[in-house]
Amino acid sequence: MTAPDGSTLRITSLTALPPPGGQPVAGPPPEMQYLYGSGEAAALSVQAYRAMYSFLRNELGHLRDKRDARSVVLAPGSTIEDPRFYRCGALPQAVVLDIDETALLNLGFEADAVARGGGYDAARWARWEQTGADKVAAVPGAAETLAALRRDGYTVIFNSNRATSSAAQTVAALDHAGLGPAVLGDTLWLRGDGEASGKDTRRAKIAERYCVVAMAGDQLGDFTDLFNAPATSVRARRNLTSETALAPLWGAGWFMLPNPVYGSGLKGGLDDIFPPETRWTDPQEKK
Amino acid sequence: MTAPDGSTLRITSLTALPPPGGQPVAGPPPEMQYLYGSGEAAALSVQAYRAMYSFLRNELGHLRDKRDARSVVLAPGSTIEDPRFYRCGALPQAVVLDIDETALLNLGFEADAVARGGGYDAARWARWEQTGADKVAAVPGAAETLAALRRDGYTVIFNSNRATSSAAQTVAALDHAGLGPAVLGDTLWLRGDGEASGKDTRRAKIAERYCVVAMAGDQLGDFTDLFNAPATSVRARRNLTSETALAPLWGAGWFMLPNPVYGSGLKGGLDDIFPPETRWTDPQEKK
Repeated sequence: MTAPDGSTLRITSLTALPPPGGQPVAGPPPEMQYLYGSGEAAALSVQAYRAMYSFLRNELGHLRDKRDARSVVLAPGSTIEDPRFYRCGALPQAVVLDIDETALLNLGFEADAVARGGGYDAARWARWEQTGADKVAAVPGAAETLAALRRDGYTVIFNSNRATSSAAQTVAALDHAGLGPAVLGDTLWLRGDGEASGKDTRRAKIAERYCVVAMAGDQLGDFTDLFNAPATSVRARRNLTSETALAPLWGAGWFMLPNPVYGSGLKGGLDDIFPPETRWTDPQEKK
Repeated sequence: MTAPDGSTLRITSLTALPPPGGQPVAGPPPEMQYLYGSGEAAALSVQAYRAMYSFLRNELGHLRDKRDARSVVLAPGSTIEDPRFYRCGALPQAVVLDIDETALLNLGFEADAVARGGGYDAARWARWEQTGADKVAAVPGAAETLAALRRDGYTVIFNSNRATSSAAQTVAALDHAGLGPAVLGDTLWLRGDGEASGKDTRRAKIAERYCVVAMAGDQLGDFTDLFNAPATSVRARRNLTSETALAPLWGAGWFMLPNPVYGSGLKGGLDDIFPPETRWTDPQEKK
């Protein structure tokens, strides 16, 4: 919509409206052009995985005693202002990742959604989990980094809200993208039938077996459910990430991947997003 | 539009269409909700600046001879497949950053654009540069990191396509956001009247005076104009970042900030963005 550098135009069409003449408008919206099509988003992803690898090498690579490693999973009783972490002891070291748009790009599902128009359809997503295993790709940087981490002795564990009932197909999708192996109940944790969407319960189970030295996700809930407490305003939720005791974790144990296409961050009207003290009116329009 | 985790809905309205009844729809589109409103995007930004600081500390902090530092600016004659870098010698070390959506969030301009509707207007942007200096905010993580880098002895230099004619107002905007100081021609390089949008010319001038040990931007052109060669397909441009000799620079000298709102990465139709081998059709629809 706006191009401050003056050199570029957004070439796109809108797909969230009902198709005017029966045929949906078959153009990806800008957030999909960005995430799935741009070199900028690919660079962000490569950078996030590189930051994870460098962090583990620089911060943990030189520890003489692995019991000095620090878990990055919040322990029960934590608050955002008073975070406490699991103790690691002699547990084996692991990295915990979300799957969708963190390690795996759901290209087939998203292209189908654009071509079809309309909003999110949970039943269609369930069919995608069951049948789309060969229509995905790895997030740039993910496959190489996970392979390197496994070579270095870290266990790679996925914690996802995909359904446990499609575990075999999710394993196949991870394998297809070069991200595996993953074994349900050990290195793959999925959402059970009727289970809530929070991930803290599964994170706790993982943290009891492993020293989780790094986590990666595209949603704040991939790090702690505390970010998604009800009645948190848009502005407050944003500030929770950058203005609290948790801020120092980004790039240092917690690694964020880009996803402007869907998720808990996409909400808010003008007054939620733009603070009153920053509002501006074009002086030309005042005349 | 799509919410694989099943737990979230996009709450938004569309603003790029002509207003139906004369009044624009006053809701930020999803890419603005993400960049300016989400904790996820704030985390990405904090992480990028943290990665920059850690890189400089870990890679350069221990150099006994500063002449061993490596420039991250491509030298003349470089190609993407055969990148060569400036020599540093004894030049003072510097970090070079873009301004808009790299160090500074243009909140006032973007909110006005949403409320007004319609596309990008270069004349309005020019008026924004002239009058919006107090309607901006720092990108999360930027102010603290730039201050720390200056304390550590690095020179912080801005290279932007903002107009030289509004240099004073750009300095004021940087100061307002806590990102200054910046001095035109030394630590602030802007686009001259009639000058092209590429940044290589100014980058070369900076690299002759400083050893540029890190760069940050939200567009590929903030790193080298080679990414924006004409006739590069969407897919090829994406692969240039992640599948070439330049890929190892992300997070290790080159630092990308998120921006799905505008820029050179926002282009392409379905077939450009989604490779044919990843196309999927919901099996239910086939029946």
